[in-house]
Amino acid sequence: MQQQISVMTLAVSDLVRSRRFYGDGFGWTPVFENDEIAFYQMNGFVLGTWLQSGLEADMRREGLCRPGAFSLAHNVVTRDEVQAVLDRLALAGGRILRNGDAPPHGGFRGYVADPDDHAWEIAWNPAWAIDHQGLVTFGV
Amino acid sequence: MQQQISVMTLAVSDLVRSRRFYGDGFGWTPVFENDEIAFYQMNGFVLGTWLQSGLEADMRREGLCRPGAFSLAHNVVTRDEVQAVLDRLALAGGRILRNGDAPPHGGFRGYVADPDDHAWEIAWNPAWAIDHQGLVTFGV
Repeated sequence: MQQQISVMTLAVSDLVRSRRFYGDGFGWTPVFENDEIAFYQMNGFVLGTWLQSGLEADMRREGLCRPGAFSLAHNVVTRDEVQAVLDRLALAGGRILRNGDAPPHGGFRGYVADPDDHAWEIAWNPAWAIDHQGLVTFGV
Repeated sequence: MQQQISVMTLAVSDLVRSRRFYGDGFGWTPVFENDEIAFYQMNGFVLGTWLQSGLEADMRREGLCRPGAFSLAHNVVTRDEVQAVLDRLALAGGRILRNGDAPPHGGFRGYVADPDDHAWEIAWNPAWAIDHQGLVTFGV
């Protein structure tokens, strides 16, 4: 079976607030939006932000909690961008969890929570290739 | 800034159990694994499964909860595959949340929780293109 994920959907409480974080913070533009969901075309898959009530009804499971036990990462191409992106995301409604520093395995990273408490790692990892389309390849 | 996510990291309690779900259920092979993390090369990004203690220490935030307020989706290319994949994932340690049925917006989908309670939607959505590399493009 294809080693493929098609969509990552984050449950949100307030689409306008979420849109500001992803739009003003990351600078991303939705490919589709209505009053309950926004989709962003990403690097080979789709990011969705959906009102939590809609996701819970679709999944047939209530009581989804935050902060959930996961993290998303956006890798940048220079070390200096890490803190700059963290700071910009904080200005767009995020909350910094960890300022940029160097992990034992190399590179540089920090964490920020989006307005719905979903965690984002902003990382510089020179061992992982990122091509012009944003496609990311694991490396050591 | 690139509309790009580099990594999606799921917190897990038991790597062997998680590996069985992703290996035997989805049929995916890690590109790297040690005693605390496994990485899978996906379609333009990387999926990580990391012991929750490691992710929490890295993120500087404890008490990450499950089920978190998000969902991942794996899209298949025929309607009939949806239930077959859900059933195979259940045999590999997953728990079906919703058997396959047709949502109002078209297509066909169901949901299954992985052994760590992370939700996966298995979907057939003929409006979204999936190429031979597994790269997925939003469509309506």
